Amino acid sequence: MAEPGAETVLPIREGEGVKKAAAEQEINPWDVQAAIDEHGNALAFDYEAISKKWATKLIDDELLQRFERLTGHKPHRWLRRGLFFSHRDFDRILDRYESGEPFFMYTGRGPSSDALHLGHTIPFSFTKWLQDVFDVPLVIQLTDDEKALFKEKLTFEDTYKFGLQNAKDIIAQGFDPKKTFIFSNLEYMGGPFLMNTWEFAKLVTFNQVRGAFGFNESTNIGRIMFPSVQCVAAFATSFPEIWSDPPAKDRTKAIAKIPVLIPMAIDQDPYFRLVRENAHRMRFPSPKPALIHSKFLTALQGAGGKMSASDPNSAIFMSDTPNQIKNKINKHAFSGGRETLEEHRELGGIPEIDVAFQYISYFEEDDEKLKDIENSYRRGELLTGELKKMAIELIQQYVKEFQERRKEVSDEILKQFMTPRKLEWKGNPNPKPKETAKKEKEAKSEKK
Amino acid sequence: MAEPGAETVLPIREGEGVKKAAAEQEINPWDVQAAIDEHGNALAFDYEAISKKWATKLIDDELLQRFERLTGHKPHRWLRRGLFFSHRDFDRILDRYESGEPFFMYTGRGPSSDALHLGHTIPFSFTKWLQDVFDVPLVIQLTDDEKALFKEKLTFEDTYKFGLQNAKDIIAQGFDPKKTFIFSNLEYMGGPFLMNTWEFAKLVTFNQVRGAFGFNESTNIGRIMFPSVQCVAAFATSFPEIWSDPPAKDRTKAIAKIPVLIPMAIDQDPYFRLVRENAHRMRFPSPKPALIHSKFLTALQGAGGKMSASDPNSAIFMSDTPNQIKNKINKHAFSGGRETLEEHRELGGIPEIDVAFQYISYFEEDDEKLKDIENSYRRGELLTGELKKMAIELIQQYVKEFQERRKEVSDEILKQFMTPRKLEWKGNPNPKPKETAKKEKEAKSEKK
Repeated sequence: MAEPGAETVLPIREGEGVKKAAAEQEINPWDVQAAIDEHGNALAFDYEAISKKWATKLIDDELLQRFERLTGHKPHRWLRRGLFFSHRDFDRILDRYESGEPFFMYTGRGPSSDALHLGHTIPFSFTKWLQDVFDVPLVIQLTDDEKALFKEKLTFEDTYKFGLQNAKDIIAQGFDPKKTFIFSNLEYMGGPFLMNTWEFAKLVTFNQVRGAFGFNESTNIGRIMFPSVQCVAAFATSFPEIWSDPPAKDRTKAIAKIPVLIPMAIDQDPYFRLVRENAHRMRFPSPKPALIHSKFLTALQGAGGKMSASDPNSAIFMSDTPNQIKNKINKHAFSGGRETLEEHRELGGIPEIDVAFQYISYFEEDDEKLKDIENSYRRGELLTGELKKMAIELIQQYVKEFQERRKEVSDEILKQFMTPRKLEWKGNPNPKPKETAKKEKEAKSEKK
Repeated sequence: MAEPGAETVLPIREGEGVKKAAAEQEINPWDVQAAIDEHGNALAFDYEAISKKWATKLIDDELLQRFERLTGHKPHRWLRRGLFFSHRDFDRILDRYESGEPFFMYTGRGPSSDALHLGHTIPFSFTKWLQDVFDVPLVIQLTDDEKALFKEKLTFEDTYKFGLQNAKDIIAQGFDPKKTFIFSNLEYMGGPFLMNTWEFAKLVTFNQVRGAFGFNESTNIGRIMFPSVQCVAAFATSFPEIWSDPPAKDRTKAIAKIPVLIPMAIDQDPYFRLVRENAHRMRFPSPKPALIHSKFLTALQGAGGKMSASDPNSAIFMSDTPNQIKNKINKHAFSGGRETLEEHRELGGIPEIDVAFQYISYFEEDDEKLKDIENSYRRGELLTGELKKMAIELIQQYVKEFQERRKEVSDEILKQFMTPRKLEWKGNPNPKPKETAKKEKEAKSEKK
């Protein structure tokens, strides 16, 4: 799974400073390119266009209101602010939550280096929050196989080791070992997971993966096979150990019916379209997975810049000191301010392209406060330097809390998370029986 | 691995009754078709042509004499009679044997049904003989993954179960558990075998497997990936457990250098050409595997007929009673005799197309006796009925001995063979040191 934030471009919103494209944007799991203007500058991604092209649904206020009504939780600021902007069948997961029926969550990480940067942790932070709200089991796939297949210079030994390091950072997001299973593909492959991988691979032709993943006849056969591995982790039957014991009779058939919710970056959608097209064709048919899509995360250099583990100045690493964070943001964060102080006071800053403002929007919980900051900056009252100061404080705090949790993650704890085992969770504490929930929903929908 | 004999056509020798082809023969691991004459009849395979096309070496008397000189064993009748007719680098394996350096053997079976017929057992019988002569470890791969990928109606659960049944029949050939490891791909996949499978898959493109295996863009991605699984069982590093412990330092590198000898039907050659082209590109490079190729085995119906597990009259099964064997051969074995007794006495029989004679040639050890039978038949002295009687007795004996050994193969013994473990073997008891062997060989080659 190419994690959101691995190679990222500024998700600035449409507005001032945003130009029209001379080259189209390109989004697939292996290649994410912003549109390019006639001067060779990267433009903002057009997320509405990609949602429309791939026929996903945009997350709207109505859906978020229903989420809050059912769960009693205010939607996460990354939902409120549109960082997670699109979905498939998230409403069906809410139906199941409402009636107290089981589902599980699945996300992943492609371990291309041993260090996570800020962008890598955000989807996991969101996933943990969502898991806490729903109180359901979660599986986290380390696609160490994929990363070595797609990065010429990395061996499978390298990526396996990176995966174990990354898993410790993931655990440090605060996941609960009782309800979370983390696995390395290279380590866990076997048994029902292997059987599902081959069975799914039997259903999918070269023609089907060629278009979806940008493959051609010179692609190596490992890459061609790999989608099956990422796809079948969406089937509950790939993890027979995690489920409490239903009657032995028809156990696999029963488990197969448990649906999954997958938080992920939008570029991973092709995998799960493939699952949605084929899940019913498995020997033990599964429902279509539900998806919730994020935008790409902002790199320090802003539009067109890429957060890269190999360039220490391009990203804030989760191992950075408070001083390193401060220096990186002060030196490298792309500014939406004007050339001179006078100009800035007169014309105002452009929050849409200001990286410090983007970072504040990721970490400042208070909506009112954020709105005030945005407005003040736009009016030229706040300077970029002041935005940077706020961003630095917020990120220093986020990283500090992470580092404190990270210290506690021993090899022993890692092993605990990565051992296939029965998980324990509660689900919805006050479910409405399925029929009641369905009737109410129908009544409501008729009322409209 | 599509085992020799699974789907077979009569390997009659060139001679009387053999016509010229109107449609070319087609040989690849998934499709074996004899050439067809203008009346739609299947012709004999042209093995010299396929050897020439694929640039293998024919096994000649000189090679067999060297084999006998080095090992002290008369070549097996299937070598003497050309059933195993071709090789790649078998002479290099003899070099290693001569100097007492280690090598191992590898063969396989694609479990497409739960019952082995006569044709299935012959390559294993030969492999066991060769293993006994060399006294080296042997790995036997059950390609349960492959058979479900290539047979639309079989599930992976089916083929896994067939594999276990087939393994018991294979064990009943008399293999020594101390030096033989049998594994199901679906069960053994993981660890170094999985790492090698992905690493090899990274080296091979769709274009490379397309031609070799007759794939196209509508081929499922599992089939496209599978060759890697069959290929990497040719690397000693896929079985770290079986090797005695060399120093921990550079252990994998040292193991990688142990070469393999693979007895197999000629249609499997494309797999191992792929290994030979890429073995040096692995992270721990391996030598090119040595191969010894068999012809296809004779079906009861003779040329163009196929031994098929789904047609009980087309093949002799290893579970058949003496009476069933007798009836099948008497009723179904294609005859090379003449229309009438008078004609037969006058013109003589055609041993090349007589299935009973072919079977006698498989099982009669005595070369003189076989020659006498051939000549008498050709002269019209022996009748087809008499040949059938001899074939029946030989096969009844072969099957009876098999069934006696098969009775002894318990689940416990199966488990023993299929447990990854250290193997024990002796190798060449009287090796010449590498340098001596090399010098002698050079001297001999100069003398010529």
